[in-house]
Amino acid sequence: MKILVLNAGSSSVKYSVVETDDHSVSISGLLERIGSADARHAYRIGADNRQIDAAIADHGQALGLLFETLTASGVVNGQPLAGIGHRVVHGGEKFREPALIDAEVTRQIAETIPLAPLHNPANLSGIEAALRQMGEIPQVAVFDTAFHHTLPDYAFRYALPGQLYSEHGVRRYGFHGTSHAYVAKQAAKLLGKPLADTHLITLHLGNGASVAAIAGGVSVDTSMGMTPLEGLMMGSRCGDIDPAIAFYLARTLGMDLNAIDQLYNKASGCLGVCGENDMRAIHAKAEQGDDSAKLALAMYAYRIKKYIGAYFAVLGRVDALVFTGGIGENDAWLRQSCCADLTGLGIAVDPKLNAAPVKPTAIHPAGTPVAVLVIATNEELEIALQTADCLAKRAT
Amino acid sequence: MKILVLNAGSSSVKYSVVETDDHSVSISGLLERIGSADARHAYRIGADNRQIDAAIADHGQALGLLFETLTASGVVNGQPLAGIGHRVVHGGEKFREPALIDAEVTRQIAETIPLAPLHNPANLSGIEAALRQMGEIPQVAVFDTAFHHTLPDYAFRYALPGQLYSEHGVRRYGFHGTSHAYVAKQAAKLLGKPLADTHLITLHLGNGASVAAIAGGVSVDTSMGMTPLEGLMMGSRCGDIDPAIAFYLARTLGMDLNAIDQLYNKASGCLGVCGENDMRAIHAKAEQGDDSAKLALAMYAYRIKKYIGAYFAVLGRVDALVFTGGIGENDAWLRQSCCADLTGLGIAVDPKLNAAPVKPTAIHPAGTPVAVLVIATNEELEIALQTADCLAKRAT
Repeated sequence: MKILVLNAGSSSVKYSVVETDDHSVSISGLLERIGSADARHAYRIGADNRQIDAAIADHGQALGLLFETLTASGVVNGQPLAGIGHRVVHGGEKFREPALIDAEVTRQIAETIPLAPLHNPANLSGIEAALRQMGEIPQVAVFDTAFHHTLPDYAFRYALPGQLYSEHGVRRYGFHGTSHAYVAKQAAKLLGKPLADTHLITLHLGNGASVAAIAGGVSVDTSMGMTPLEGLMMGSRCGDIDPAIAFYLARTLGMDLNAIDQLYNKASGCLGVCGENDMRAIHAKAEQGDDSAKLALAMYAYRIKKYIGAYFAVLGRVDALVFTGGIGENDAWLRQSCCADLTGLGIAVDPKLNAAPVKPTAIHPAGTPVAVLVIATNEELEIALQTADCLAKRAT
Repeated sequence: MKILVLNAGSSSVKYSVVETDDHSVSISGLLERIGSADARHAYRIGADNRQIDAAIADHGQALGLLFETLTASGVVNGQPLAGIGHRVVHGGEKFREPALIDAEVTRQIAETIPLAPLHNPANLSGIEAALRQMGEIPQVAVFDTAFHHTLPDYAFRYALPGQLYSEHGVRRYGFHGTSHAYVAKQAAKLLGKPLADTHLITLHLGNGASVAAIAGGVSVDTSMGMTPLEGLMMGSRCGDIDPAIAFYLARTLGMDLNAIDQLYNKASGCLGVCGENDMRAIHAKAEQGDDSAKLALAMYAYRIKKYIGAYFAVLGRVDALVFTGGIGENDAWLRQSCCADLTGLGIAVDPKLNAAPVKPTAIHPAGTPVAVLVIATNEELEIALQTADCLAKRAT
């Protein structure tokens, strides 16, 4: 089944066309700087990389260009698109699985905007533009939160008045669900165990970063919360922090809530601690002896280690620890550091295996109780598969 | 050495006179509702409980009453007070150990007020009143933060711009240090090991609650942060929470920062989840079938369990888990719940031993790798001992 996967951001649309039978990608690309005169459409088709510079006014025009490209390049000739899968960041409590998009679903996604004011409006613009341009193709919304709908209440509730949950949806939702779900399935395959018997700690470490505790294939806790700000230290996000620091910043430094929001989301994390948010640049600085870069690396690894311990306690037993995402897949130093001195939990990393670049791969010494795996995530493929699955269910 | 221990709150002064040689307490009491016409001085001397109702205008008048009582009751006859030990909540980065109070120390405590706007002004009022009334007796400030001064930077720094730390002191300080230090020493004695070789997770669970990871007798991490709001779920404090929830509450519900501060500190935690902040009342409600009380208990235990796992990972090996504080010492259900299914960490609780009321006591089954101990905390004694120690050092 040929599926177009769309990920619409506020000024960008990322896409790929995935064949769900053999997992091949016939085209993938990025339309960026939408809304400006110097927008760009870069895409890869077969072994060719192409780039078109043009003014793109809005998401509608961006998708117009995209569909022209699909037709002109012959990608959809012969076998047309069977469906479009849209990545949607926040599904609230409503969406526990992918949803075939209709007016009601669109309305419900719009209702979750207060929970994800940065992401959901852009996702919705993408959906609306795609419906206008190609309304005859069935479209499916795949939610980043859905995989975590299995969290028990004692894990998803905050210690706040119950009314804030029941009336305003204040609870832990978790994100990166598509990635956690994908690598969990791959890990079970690698371990040769049924997913339903597999206990995992999955670490998605990219520009955003989150951990999930997965019991029997099901998410039971995760580090991101009501928003993607909570949890691990990230590229520019602070992650876990004393909630009273906001009151101090307001009273002592006169910052207002918007300034604190910007600070926590855009100027904190690795960027705040050492002035860089790219992990390779941070390593380079640290190797040159920069203390703030060394501190950022030590903090980043230490906070992961604490979550590994916390989720080990939650799960009781762990079959594998899984590293994925740009940093998780490529940063051998980090994998080694956050697993250091964890033999008490049955976790260790073999330095030689850890240095090897082949993925997927196991990097624990033979005979260690907990497998440590490096698995490349593939959110586009997972969205395509979930979209195809949703369409197949509708057909039956 | 006879030491008067003073703990001055905003409208109360708690005190006791401790003999550091034999740890006996000759008098202990509480002056409360200071600033009102119906203030009260309740105290216990020997086996007698007494109570005096009177108007008390301020801390000065409260301490005047206290010193009259000490003289009239004969507590300070024969052997006068050798020193006064003041509990001070926040010592900032300056105070890494107890400090003999002089004008400079008083000034430095005043400088930390922005870090602890609720507690330090009251502590300081107590100090100033005591200096005025009994300036000839040497006085020592004992800080709740001091025990945690050994945290490494990667544990005490937040993932915020470095300048907020270097110029404004935004970092993890930790609290309940006197209690964590006291029970750590007791635990090492019970284990028959030198404190310097002992790895512990100490859980101080009272109306406020915090965990400490103690490596070789030294605090290496703790759950409370820059303020006592971070970490575990507490009686009325929310503990760990997505920092972006404040932005949501402001934008969606129109709350201002003062209202959010009140909400997080006074109306959250157990109180927020189930309407009660007394653990016995919560158990009673849960036994009557109240779902919100059951949820509060489950959340309270679950969050402790996650910290046990996190600090196990931090420490690498753990000699003992120590429960203390009003809840930690008395709530057998809670101890059992937060240690359930932790055999993977070598932690288990024997139901019969756990039900036994004798303290200090070990409640783990024989042969378990990690001891689980219940130890009554004694912050007054610890403050008296640290005060005596500080005075002895000065004398040499």
